[in-house]
Amino acid sequence: MNYQLVINEVYNTFRNSTNKGKIANYIPELKKVDANKFGIGLVTISGDSFGAGDYKDTFSIQSISKVFALTLALKIVGNKLWKRVGVEPSGDPFNSLVQLEFEKGIPRNPLINAGALVLCDILISKLKNPKDEFLAFVQKLGNNNNINYNLNVVASEKKYGFKNAAHVNLMKSFGNIKNNIDDVLDFYYHICSIEMSCEALSKAFLLYANRGVLPYTGEEIISLSITKRINATVQLCGLYDEAGTFSFKVGLPGKSGVGGGIVAIHPGKYCITVWSPRLNKKGNSYKGINALELFTTKTELSIF
Amino acid sequence: MNYQLVINEVYNTFRNSTNKGKIANYIPELKKVDANKFGIGLVTISGDSFGAGDYKDTFSIQSISKVFALTLALKIVGNKLWKRVGVEPSGDPFNSLVQLEFEKGIPRNPLINAGALVLCDILISKLKNPKDEFLAFVQKLGNNNNINYNLNVVASEKKYGFKNAAHVNLMKSFGNIKNNIDDVLDFYYHICSIEMSCEALSKAFLLYANRGVLPYTGEEIISLSITKRINATVQLCGLYDEAGTFSFKVGLPGKSGVGGGIVAIHPGKYCITVWSPRLNKKGNSYKGINALELFTTKTELSIF
Amino acid sequence: MNYQLVINEVYNTFRNSTNKGKIANYIPELKKVDANKFGIGLVTISGDSFGAGDYKDTFSIQSISKVFALTLALKIVGNKLWKRVGVEPSGDPFNSLVQLEFEKGIPRNPLINAGALVLCDILISKLKNPKDEFLAFVQKLGNNNNINYNLNVVASEKKYGFKNAAHVNLMKSFGNIKNNIDDVLDFYYHICSIEMSCEALSKAFLLYANRGVLPYTGEEIISLSITKRINATVQLCGLYDEAGTFSFKVGLPGKSGVGGGIVAIHPGKYCITVWSPRLNKKGNSYKGINALELFTTKTELSIF
Amino acid sequence: MNYQLVINEVYNTFRNSTNKGKIANYIPELKKVDANKFGIGLVTISGDSFGAGDYKDTFSIQSISKVFALTLALKIVGNKLWKRVGVEPSGDPFNSLVQLEFEKGIPRNPLINAGALVLCDILISKLKNPKDEFLAFVQKLGNNNNINYNLNVVASEKKYGFKNAAHVNLMKSFGNIKNNIDDVLDFYYHICSIEMSCEALSKAFLLYANRGVLPYTGEEIISLSITKRINATVQLCGLYDEAGTFSFKVGLPGKSGVGGGIVAIHPGKYCITVWSPRLNKKGNSYKGINALELFTTKTELSIF
Repeated sequence: MNYQLVINEVYNTFRNSTNKGKIANYIPELKKVDANKFGIGLVTISGDSFGAGDYKDTFSIQSISKVFALTLALKIVGNKLWKRVGVEPSGDPFNSLVQLEFEKGIPRNPLINAGALVLCDILISKLKNPKDEFLAFVQKLGNNNNINYNLNVVASEKKYGFKNAAHVNLMKSFGNIKNNIDDVLDFYYHICSIEMSCEALSKAFLLYANRGVLPYTGEEIISLSITKRINATVQLCGLYDEAGTFSFKVGLPGKSGVGGGIVAIHPGKYCITVWSPRLNKKGNSYKGINALELFTTKTELSIF
Repeated sequence: MNYQLVINEVYNTFRNSTNKGKIANYIPELKKVDANKFGIGLVTISGDSFGAGDYKDTFSIQSISKVFALTLALKIVGNKLWKRVGVEPSGDPFNSLVQLEFEKGIPRNPLINAGALVLCDILISKLKNPKDEFLAFVQKLGNNNNINYNLNVVASEKKYGFKNAAHVNLMKSFGNIKNNIDDVLDFYYHICSIEMSCEALSKAFLLYANRGVLPYTGEEIISLSITKRINATVQLCGLYDEAGTFSFKVGLPGKSGVGGGIVAIHPGKYCITVWSPRLNKKGNSYKGINALELFTTKTELSIF
Repeated sequence: MNYQLVINEVYNTFRNSTNKGKIANYIPELKKVDANKFGIGLVTISGDSFGAGDYKDTFSIQSISKVFALTLALKIVGNKLWKRVGVEPSGDPFNSLVQLEFEKGIPRNPLINAGALVLCDILISKLKNPKDEFLAFVQKLGNNNNINYNLNVVASEKKYGFKNAAHVNLMKSFGNIKNNIDDVLDFYYHICSIEMSCEALSKAFLLYANRGVLPYTGEEIISLSITKRINATVQLCGLYDEAGTFSFKVGLPGKSGVGGGIVAIHPGKYCITVWSPRLNKKGNSYKGINALELFTTKTELSIF
Repeated sequence: MNYQLVINEVYNTFRNSTNKGKIANYIPELKKVDANKFGIGLVTISGDSFGAGDYKDTFSIQSISKVFALTLALKIVGNKLWKRVGVEPSGDPFNSLVQLEFEKGIPRNPLINAGALVLCDILISKLKNPKDEFLAFVQKLGNNNNINYNLNVVASEKKYGFKNAAHVNLMKSFGNIKNNIDDVLDFYYHICSIEMSCEALSKAFLLYANRGVLPYTGEEIISLSITKRINATVQLCGLYDEAGTFSFKVGLPGKSGVGGGIVAIHPGKYCITVWSPRLNKKGNSYKGINALELFTTKTELSIF
């Protein structure tokens, strides 16, 4: 399979397409990004890297970071984690409080905001220096010491993050947040502010395609069993209430962020990231979904 | 891989296990089944068949039939189908009217009751003799002329099916049912009443593991692209609001029925059916989920 | 208080006002009405009658009939009734299934469609000839043998009443409907089809302003205690999810129907009906609410 | 009418009755109250005062204070208020976020927590010293300079008020809170911490029974029209999702607080307060509702 050829085709197909969708505007800092950026980056478990467009530019990975938080939390506390967060798709928009209230403060899954806030709460309880240790963990997964937080994004999120504050307060009222609310939000906004390129992000996701093992060092980060469970969770919950459509169109587990990135995992083969900041109504990258659909159609690769 | 060996292990592990769960009791006819029945049947795309326990006994496949209805409807009307039914997990119990009302009569996906009622409505509009033609289609998929409806189950369902009548009336009020309500319900209860054994059901599902092609005849029933989409839908929506847990534990697309059957698809390899009539609180076979989890753990086979 | 003078003022204020709102169009028979009809009719418990405009024309009282059904059911079964229907405002549109499902088939109150369907079910169980006896009861309350069903409206409702069929089937699935579904719907559509004029309707409601006693005969139909409870129920639930606004603006218990009628009760004094077929978005007569607001403002009469 | 005689009867009926219900335990400070306290206090608009039991002891009026906040806010901003808060019953428990999210940050009515938080936000925007001016206003209504905040209750509420923090953050995310969140919560907890006796509270509510005029000074605080609207709002929304039952049983506008107080208004006549700290499942005083029901039954007084 000549991945570079297919990537080029996909890139050229959408490069000049009318740019539907809108850049995330709920925080000022995210609005500063050039809406026309477009990159595709694929890295295989055998170490080959392919790309097109702005695939070496960094962007705010936002919610994609929740997968790293899930991984670190599972590594530390194991399956006890599932007492505090569910594994079912939410069937509702990503910031809905309805389900959270109805289900007494237990978020539907770890990849919606409420679920990730619980992950942050767990990590704060277990880590000495949560922000340093989390960043070091992501740098290790990506074999890349340049990965970092963007403190302007953190500050901007804090200033406008009233809905997240509503979530965390509601869960605290049900006893499912143990630490101080401001500490949980501060840590959450840090992990969401991480910046990476398409290439770096695909590389940092390779363990999920490689049975939990970092291909470049051979180190096992998580067991095969946990890896499969993370992939299943990503498949069912990774694109909020568009997870069904994404599975249907792309056929791979994938995770999106409001920065416009989407990363998809092909177990046993590769990871691929598309970045285009314009989002559809569900909050997922418009071009990102279309590019990944065309990519899996052209390569005939899908887990189904 | 020695499938028979693993099936025996799994069968023996659960054979005498305390039988938690309750047999479906909402219609009298289903209550007549022996609650202790337990069978596992696997058929590979190369034609090998393995099994243990009551895997040659027939049982009421119930909701599993929705996958056949989806296949036939997609074969006939293609992707126009998705205008009348969604592809997202429901995040709610399988018979909930809430979402249906909120979303103006468009069911979340084709594998919840409301969605399957829309499939039935479409098939009635397109087929001359819906009941005969549907049965012939399933017989062809299973290469098995013994497959048939159970008219006692049809009669029993009709007598107690007020919730389905509520669904279909609600959708009719939104204009998403075109035919007479009694005709739609009659056809729906027929397709749910089909009886098959574990072995026969696994065989009839092989096209989904084989790119849409019947392995025993080579006939392409549906395209590769439609096959993938059906598998993705089954993965995300096949176990009602336990789809996440099932993906998480089993890692394969699967569909359950209140008769106690669950069939799972391993693309490129095989289909496997477990039948045990006692259901958990979500309406899925208690032993069925556990047996499939153990099977994929022991074989280390999963799409993730 | 010179009621006629105030009625004239109110009538003249709204007579030529731009006619906002839309006539009910969910059944063809209701659409046939002249949308510009406008009448106001007031009858006091001492027997005086006042009116303006089309206050002697008959119209379809629709949901207003639910108050009569509630009265007859309470008269027959007493407070046992409240085991099968609640007394709280619905907080949701009048045809919502959400709450009904969440609360396991017990309608929030007797004045929403689902609640009235339960009333009909109770009356069918208790009366030999429900349709005849119900009509005779209303004729007696109104001291008027000309009150009758409109069978064209019944037929029209049946043809398009899928949402009511959804409600009754859902309640039957929870065991809160005892009789045959078609019989319940048939009786329900009959009681909603009753036709009366503003004057006749105000007169038939006088018992609620007169401690349960018919002022023209002195007969006690219901006790003072039951009368107060009906008035409280009408106050809180009579205008669907606009009950708060109506109480707020008009300050009297009132009941509306999609035929464009609204009747209000002033305990100890009078009943007043306004009829104007154009409805607001909540399904209540646009002019009706405004006319009653002006009437109570000008008379400074309100229960508050 | 010999009010004292009826009050004695009611008091003696419930004095030794088995004390069902539970004292509010969500904040430690409220738990310190003697659960067996029981007082009834009635004050007429002509200045007569009657009482029994602990009717001169002060208690935490909690949510009853929302009526004072509504009055002051309406006095200052008039009907513009209704752009930021609705007038419909909530149909849901008093702390539900569901409706608030669904209706985009506009609370259903001013007497649920979210609505009162909006009132506090308005008052903060309009008053120089909100806490001082609000207290002075309540002291004026009650003609009583001893009325005061309880700062221990304020501190206790703040420590456990995560659900209120969730509400106010959610409304801020929709733009319906203008001031700093901590300021709004601080003011809200102050107004809820006010302590009064049954007698003092009945007296402070007399303006609502007296067309907006303080009977002891003759000063008009609010217009007749606004008074009626407040009474209508209290009638429909004063007892959370038990408002229907209360109207049905008691037949007067009433407002409850989790401190165990309920005050009811009889327009043109009197106000009556019952205090008993044990609450039913809906969060309203168990004995309070029963005592008021018996009182209006025995006096045959009701607005209906």
